[in-house]
Amino acid sequence: MKKILLIPDSFKGTMSSKQICDIMERAIHLHYPDTEVISIPVADGGEGSVDAFLSAIGGEKRTVAVKGPYFEEMEAFYGVVDDGKTAVIEMAACAGLPLVGDNRNPLKTTTYGVGQLMAQALADGCTKIIMGLGGSATNDGGCGAASALGVKFLNSNGAEFVPVGGTLCDISRIDTTGLNPMLKNVEIVTMCDIDNPLYGETGAAYIFGPQKGATPEVVKELDNGLKHLAQVVKNELKLDAADADGKGAGAAGGMGYGMAVFFGSKLQMGIETVLDAVKFEELLQDTSLVFSGEGKIDTQSLRGKVVIGVAKRTKAANVPLIAVVGDIGDNIEAAYDAGVSAVFSINRVAVDFPVAKARAESDLYLTMDNLMRFVKLITAKDI
Amino acid sequence: MKKILLIPDSFKGTMSSKQICDIMERAIHLHYPDTEVISIPVADGGEGSVDAFLSAIGGEKRTVAVKGPYFEEMEAFYGVVDDGKTAVIEMAACAGLPLVGDNRNPLKTTTYGVGQLMAQALADGCTKIIMGLGGSATNDGGCGAASALGVKFLNSNGAEFVPVGGTLCDISRIDTTGLNPMLKNVEIVTMCDIDNPLYGETGAAYIFGPQKGATPEVVKELDNGLKHLAQVVKNELKLDAADADGKGAGAAGGMGYGMAVFFGSKLQMGIETVLDAVKFEELLQDTSLVFSGEGKIDTQSLRGKVVIGVAKRTKAANVPLIAVVGDIGDNIEAAYDAGVSAVFSINRVAVDFPVAKARAESDLYLTMDNLMRFVKLITAKDI
Repeated sequence: MKKILLIPDSFKGTMSSKQICDIMERAIHLHYPDTEVISIPVADGGEGSVDAFLSAIGGEKRTVAVKGPYFEEMEAFYGVVDDGKTAVIEMAACAGLPLVGDNRNPLKTTTYGVGQLMAQALADGCTKIIMGLGGSATNDGGCGAASALGVKFLNSNGAEFVPVGGTLCDISRIDTTGLNPMLKNVEIVTMCDIDNPLYGETGAAYIFGPQKGATPEVVKELDNGLKHLAQVVKNELKLDAADADGKGAGAAGGMGYGMAVFFGSKLQMGIETVLDAVKFEELLQDTSLVFSGEGKIDTQSLRGKVVIGVAKRTKAANVPLIAVVGDIGDNIEAAYDAGVSAVFSINRVAVDFPVAKARAESDLYLTMDNLMRFVKLITAKDI
Repeated sequence: MKKILLIPDSFKGTMSSKQICDIMERAIHLHYPDTEVISIPVADGGEGSVDAFLSAIGGEKRTVAVKGPYFEEMEAFYGVVDDGKTAVIEMAACAGLPLVGDNRNPLKTTTYGVGQLMAQALADGCTKIIMGLGGSATNDGGCGAASALGVKFLNSNGAEFVPVGGTLCDISRIDTTGLNPMLKNVEIVTMCDIDNPLYGETGAAYIFGPQKGATPEVVKELDNGLKHLAQVVKNELKLDAADADGKGAGAAGGMGYGMAVFFGSKLQMGIETVLDAVKFEELLQDTSLVFSGEGKIDTQSLRGKVVIGVAKRTKAANVPLIAVVGDIGDNIEAAYDAGVSAVFSINRVAVDFPVAKARAESDLYLTMDNLMRFVKLITAKDI
């Protein structure tokens, strides 16, 4: 066996993608010590995404002095991969929920620092920016980031200000003439795995506001602000891209929307972004087997999650893909159609999840161990 | 793939060996419609053992008029395999617990009918008898069966009687001169998977008496009876084989002991008996894969149960053996050493046993389905 690729999603709350890769690699090398094993920890856009990219394809982490969630000075970072041409940013680095601790207030928090990270990447000569959403403490529709890159937001008195969640309704006019000109020549891709629109009952404020500290009254205020922002953008920018109903517009307090309307970014599934970034098709050459996995494969996860995203490409390249998962839901035949060759659960005893969770690492290792034993004996004999 | 052998133990209380064979075969033929699949449902000696043998190697079921557990007239059966040369008897056919319903009384029940089945097999010209213990309603140390084949039990008055559990202490002398002479030329093998001695705290009465209806007082009486029997046998028969401490002597109310001392039968693991009967080594020729399994593989089951019994022979023949099981215990590395190539659990979701049990058939099918998908893709590519 020449080469095996590992590209599992995390088992949420149980094992990170990186941990899973390490365990799988250990079991593989027990039986195939000479096989090249390439691990691609999967980033979901949230905290840890930059490290996942760097671990998968190598690169450099750069620190930048920016403004934090409450405009305080702080040091954040972004990653540079692909010979310095591509920047990977996780917005959680300077607008993340862990940064504010118990002081959660989406009326006041900003994505300004995220825009500063983008500006630094542009200044450093990057021609592509991968933006990871997720884990944000903000609800500013990306206006902070836009401000940091030269967009001017004016109130009814014509005074310029940096809108936050609580002041979105004060926006009267938007002036994009000062937008950083380097943005024109840069491809921006935003990783986004959720479908929520900008506002409304399934929008950013209603669905994600409460976990950022918003009371029901504040949720309403935030939702009104995002709705107002969408109205002003529509009037002022005359952008077709300004689609507040678009899938993912409501990601990260409206940051999905902001990335699209202010920077012309496309929003795409995180796994597609990762697969593109690692040049997955090139890696597949000479690959014998690909292992992916997730906490639970079911009809839900067949809609664009990691395993299925990987399957589409392995199928096209005719490389076998094995999914090693926690639970297997009912009626997953569509997975086989999509290109998953076979699915195995790591469950080795009939126990409830809390018990299973505690033994997940060992169960994963032993399941991989037995799969590799199986591969070895089948390939060893002419059967 | 030319040929696959299926030889799983039952998943106790969940699926019979035959059911498991059927499910496995269905999943295999989905992917390999032309592969020959040979199913060997495993008999454990208890109820259903004759059918299992007939299903595995073909043969004939013969009915015989015999005495039931309470000396009542009834119709029982035995199986004839191997061109009429071998008889397969399950003692449960005329001395089984289900036959007595709620009227359980091991002081009164007899194995006389079992001896009658043996006598008929001898009369029919069988040169080998396979005796299945298990599921008995009796505690007569096999004296009933011995009586039916000509052994005379005499009390202190010199009167002949057929001892039952409650009258074992009345035995004064044993006269074997009238023993059916055809027994001399017959090989008798008794299937026995338990280790209990004839009497004492781990003996037949103490361990299995209660499930046959014995109260604590009755257990004591039965145990004394078995002890007395062993003493008389030792004095009267002067047999080295009369080993009341022997492993399995306590099986089926002392029937294990009776088979050994009255008929010179060897007691051996059920799986060894099955493997011999089906001529397993011959079946292994041209076999690509063997699937076995059991409800739980663990350090306990590594001591001579079905999977390990099969493994010893597949290992010698260098044929891969896959164990598909319910639960996988910890530290089963010895299974690999013994010849199990790989072990897979059918558990597909993290749920407790009652839930897992209800979905066991589907879980088994889908696990086999995925294993066969896996085999197919690995053998299809040169990896």
